[in-house]
Amino acid sequence: MFFGSDNTSGVHPKLMEALTKANDGYASPYGTDRWTAELTERLRDLFQAPDALVYPMTSGTGTNAAILAAMTPPWGIIYCHKTAHIEVDERNSVPFYSGGAKLKPLPGTASRLAPEELHGEVISDGAKDDIHASPPAAVSLTNLTEFGELYRPADIAAIADAAQLPLHLDGARFANAMAASHASPWEMTREISALSLGATKTGAMAAEAAILFDPSLKNAFESNRMRGGHNLSKARYVSAQILAWLQDDLWLELATQANAMGARLAAGITEIGGELAYEVAGNMVFARLTRAQHAKAKARGAVYNLWGAQPVIGDPDQPMLARFVASWSTTEADVDALLATLTD
Amino acid sequence: MFFGSDNTSGVHPKLMEALTKANDGYASPYGTDRWTAELTERLRDLFQAPDALVYPMTSGTGTNAAILAAMTPPWGIIYCHKTAHIEVDERNSVPFYSGGAKLKPLPGTASRLAPEELHGEVISDGAKDDIHASPPAAVSLTNLTEFGELYRPADIAAIADAAQLPLHLDGARFANAMAASHASPWEMTREISALSLGATKTGAMAAEAAILFDPSLKNAFESNRMRGGHNLSKARYVSAQILAWLQDDLWLELATQANAMGARLAAGITEIGGELAYEVAGNMVFARLTRAQHAKAKARGAVYNLWGAQPVIGDPDQPMLARFVASWSTTEADVDALLATLTD
Amino acid sequence: MFFGSDNTSGVHPKLMEALTKANDGYASPYGTDRWTAELTERLRDLFQAPDALVYPMTSGTGTNAAILAAMTPPWGIIYCHKTAHIEVDERNSVPFYSGGAKLKPLPGTASRLAPEELHGEVISDGAKDDIHASPPAAVSLTNLTEFGELYRPADIAAIADAAQLPLHLDGARFANAMAASHASPWEMTREISALSLGATKTGAMAAEAAILFDPSLKNAFESNRMRGGHNLSKARYVSAQILAWLQDDLWLELATQANAMGARLAAGITEIGGELAYEVAGNMVFARLTRAQHAKAKARGAVYNLWGAQPVIGDPDQPMLARFVASWSTTEADVDALLATLTD
Amino acid sequence: MFFGSDNTSGVHPKLMEALTKANDGYASPYGTDRWTAELTERLRDLFQAPDALVYPMTSGTGTNAAILAAMTPPWGIIYCHKTAHIEVDERNSVPFYSGGAKLKPLPGTASRLAPEELHGEVISDGAKDDIHASPPAAVSLTNLTEFGELYRPADIAAIADAAQLPLHLDGARFANAMAASHASPWEMTREISALSLGATKTGAMAAEAAILFDPSLKNAFESNRMRGGHNLSKARYVSAQILAWLQDDLWLELATQANAMGARLAAGITEIGGELAYEVAGNMVFARLTRAQHAKAKARGAVYNLWGAQPVIGDPDQPMLARFVASWSTTEADVDALLATLTD
Repeated sequence: MFFGSDNTSGVHPKLMEALTKANDGYASPYGTDRWTAELTERLRDLFQAPDALVYPMTSGTGTNAAILAAMTPPWGIIYCHKTAHIEVDERNSVPFYSGGAKLKPLPGTASRLAPEELHGEVISDGAKDDIHASPPAAVSLTNLTEFGELYRPADIAAIADAAQLPLHLDGARFANAMAASHASPWEMTREISALSLGATKTGAMAAEAAILFDPSLKNAFESNRMRGGHNLSKARYVSAQILAWLQDDLWLELATQANAMGARLAAGITEIGGELAYEVAGNMVFARLTRAQHAKAKARGAVYNLWGAQPVIGDPDQPMLARFVASWSTTEADVDALLATLTD
Repeated sequence: MFFGSDNTSGVHPKLMEALTKANDGYASPYGTDRWTAELTERLRDLFQAPDALVYPMTSGTGTNAAILAAMTPPWGIIYCHKTAHIEVDERNSVPFYSGGAKLKPLPGTASRLAPEELHGEVISDGAKDDIHASPPAAVSLTNLTEFGELYRPADIAAIADAAQLPLHLDGARFANAMAASHASPWEMTREISALSLGATKTGAMAAEAAILFDPSLKNAFESNRMRGGHNLSKARYVSAQILAWLQDDLWLELATQANAMGARLAAGITEIGGELAYEVAGNMVFARLTRAQHAKAKARGAVYNLWGAQPVIGDPDQPMLARFVASWSTTEADVDALLATLTD
Repeated sequence: MFFGSDNTSGVHPKLMEALTKANDGYASPYGTDRWTAELTERLRDLFQAPDALVYPMTSGTGTNAAILAAMTPPWGIIYCHKTAHIEVDERNSVPFYSGGAKLKPLPGTASRLAPEELHGEVISDGAKDDIHASPPAAVSLTNLTEFGELYRPADIAAIADAAQLPLHLDGARFANAMAASHASPWEMTREISALSLGATKTGAMAAEAAILFDPSLKNAFESNRMRGGHNLSKARYVSAQILAWLQDDLWLELATQANAMGARLAAGITEIGGELAYEVAGNMVFARLTRAQHAKAKARGAVYNLWGAQPVIGDPDQPMLARFVASWSTTEADVDALLATLTD
Repeated sequence: MFFGSDNTSGVHPKLMEALTKANDGYASPYGTDRWTAELTERLRDLFQAPDALVYPMTSGTGTNAAILAAMTPPWGIIYCHKTAHIEVDERNSVPFYSGGAKLKPLPGTASRLAPEELHGEVISDGAKDDIHASPPAAVSLTNLTEFGELYRPADIAAIADAAQLPLHLDGARFANAMAASHASPWEMTREISALSLGATKTGAMAAEAAILFDPSLKNAFESNRMRGGHNLSKARYVSAQILAWLQDDLWLELATQANAMGARLAAGITEIGGELAYEVAGNMVFARLTRAQHAKAKARGAVYNLWGAQPVIGDPDQPMLARFVASWSTTEADVDALLATLTD
């Protein structure tokens, strides 16, 4: 009953197998190996982006920061939702990598940027056009969002229109977004300058790909990657995992399973009187259950996180928000077992 | 009719005279001169802070940044009002000097921090207590605020209580705040760890003092000051100005004049149908006047700034916000002349 | 015939097996798993350092930078040899992570720091004791060095005595140094505040451990690790590899093999008239061979690097320096095959 | 008898007078005043550089750092002499402002860069052309150098040829260099991309001009100036000083006087048995005198600095290096009085 995060799940057997196969003698280092070359071709095809540059990475935070620092000068502004991982969970990595750029977190709606609000901020900041002020530089989106919501291609287009700025997409759960949207990779990224494509949360070991759809980011990104300590010598092992992950749409299959388990959980929680806090588009469920229910679940070994500040004491009927995350390895039995812990 | 900013005014004759007197042969460099020693003693007495460290500076931005970077690790959070100069007008100087710290701008009320809101943010950020999150480090206040409002000592105490964090005070218009509050320097700063004391806007040439009430900030501040390029060789000329400024309470006299002109202007604007946007505590007046009035004033040579985004076209009765700043050298005749440009 | 670098070799089967075993269901993320706990205990025992803190990492550069930035203020000096990886091969990662600290590269002898020279620099820099100057903060050693030389425990003690500063050890080839020195881990690190323990070059996939012998580095290191993007969610896979690597002294066995192949190669090169440029203590051989020999080897498929600036044209007898690196997977047959390519 | 540094001298009366004249009512802030406009025109004419951008500054360190950070990416190398102020006396300001760029200090000859050595370093660093390495970005020269030596235009041309990189000139004592060389400003700077023109050491209060001969540096320089805290509100007072300084070649007159006093001192020191350590091209004299002579001078009130590490005890005949700096206000009587203190 592990619903703490999808990063607590293991590695899919096909990726383990790919690692074993890639472990075949010597290979040229730092991404000059044949797996990385193949990965580049594979991702260019998938995203219909023949000029895209592809880099195997082991860290989503490192990927985000190295990309965003290539998209802004040290004095620029990067807009994001106030719940964004880069704003909330990366200990100032973007100001660090960029040498001082500002993240401007916006309230939006739930965990999604609101195009009109974004537009207003960018216009207002851009209108200053003054050396005292910080100029708009880029927007960073997360899809699925931090609350498990989905941006569809039309949503992203609306944001692009509103901002008139280069867009970065934090795709820690990009597979879940793709599985939920049924859009093509190209449709989902046609407005995007650079994508942090995360495989770790969907079945890989520690494998991400930085994809630069805008090749002019090359030198700054590669420099940030290097000085950040993210230029892997044995890159083949990351590339080989992602190749296996993409093979026969395994990534979508795994995400579909995780999403289905999210939906099953959401339905079950509603049934037992829980209240869903946000749209459940994929594998993340935010729900309010009573203090008594949480206590019971915890006592019975369920693992998940209460969300936000929690009152220390309170009456058993008090609703408390929790986050449940299903993963590629979550089964129906797991979901049902979790639901059982919440029920008497 | 210069009401664009108090930094457009000149230097008070007594400060010019002090410069001339200080220009007497050789002096030991980098603040080891006798003027700086005397300034330190004078400010320690004034603030009843025998351990305070004092540094002559030429820049408010440099002073703020060098201080704040000594009050936070690169991964910390500094809370400020969303209108704060450090947030809006210093081109990311705090993330720059601190190596990545985050300014967290809060809405507060008008241009003042709201203690309860601040408390909530600090508690919420502090409660994470997780390596992913950024820990609370300090609070920066501005007094007078950017909208010309005043924090009284009790307001600052409430903020200190709410935040339980070290406080920095941006005192670009500290003299105006002191003149408006009738508090003692000690009362106004007893909760403050470090003060950027600005004299430039109140009659000096380019003269500020960094005052570290908390002497443990010494090494980091001095290092930031040095590597930021703010360790002046001929420091005597700044210290001599501030000494003259403090002499016989000249600073309060000049600020009192500026504040009185602010009040006169506010009264006059109200009289001609303008609407004051914020409390006028000192020398800054934010007021809504009609587009027609602004057009007239501008045509007649009045200098001041419309504030915020402005619609390009509109009807003559449309109210438009403007900022007027009086300075130590503003006269009643200046105010009346400005008011005349806004009338019939 | 891959002698380009030990990072071109694969992963040892026992580490692959450990990965498979660790891939067992869910595990708590970010190093709170049982493998990482066990690794901490194992390394504390090995180094006789009960208070040491241990962090699984995927990058040597990231480990070095996150550690060193915890050992210096942004205005400090870190001394290293002019051939050090941090100085030559990490694209300014240390000034980046530290927010501006200076690496001071010293000539030393070949690739080792010379205690007397280091002492002179530290004393001279420390004697300034002036806010204009940068104060000495730490020393970084590499063992094996970049030229494959060895520091024995007595050498490190001499450096510690000379510098009177905290020491960092870049142990990308620490296993090779241990196998060459026959010292105990404790003997080799008793003067060291923090160790970047590299397993990648000696049989792991992308696995390093940061070991803080000085626990006061904790907060700054963990913060740098996080904001640098090196706090792995699925840390178990790194920890499991290193545990397998340490098991039954596999690490020393692998390093011993690599070192033996280095020795065999050095002997063979000498035999065919090549000149060794530096002491061959472990698995790296720097040798001068004729342009004709290099041309032959290259034509026959040998992979290794010429070292330093190379004249574009020249006569066939001209000596040219090359670097050959043996790895844990290098066999006698590999060495002999390489030697054959160099011989007619 | 103040020979500690030229920054201990006062402000020339004509500059004080210019300050008084500039103190005439209101002026537009942040360099949009008429004095700064006039200064720009004046310097463009003087340097025959119609596109040059000019910025009044109060700090040489701030000027150097804001310029150099515009000339390099965070991962670049800036070459300088090992005695350069930016390397030795600015507490890591260049790595700080640039977000991590490396200063590469070179031995050169005495305090001047040696073109051949510089060429070798640039070629060697540039040849790596590898993401691990740091690419060459710029060269920074100081004229007069830190040891008071002179680069003539031909010397600078030789350096430009050797480096094939953009050049920055730290002109803290540019007036002294001009007076010594009898070159035209254009001749002295035709190879230079940006100049830190210092007036402070030659008669100003705290007045420097950043001159960008390469206008493409504009945005990055202005951003660094702003976030560094060097965008002065009351810029007119700096510009007015420099205008007065340039008027009727006052700057050259003052520098000529300082240089003449340097020459007189050098001759006098030689006469009393002192040994000059470096060429005395301008106003700085480095000389070895006996411990007994220094003791006498000090006892008689002479102010100057011993240079480098000093043995604590020693015999009275031991030669000890000292630095003497003459300024615009040094008189023949001052020099003779100093010499008298050194003689019995």
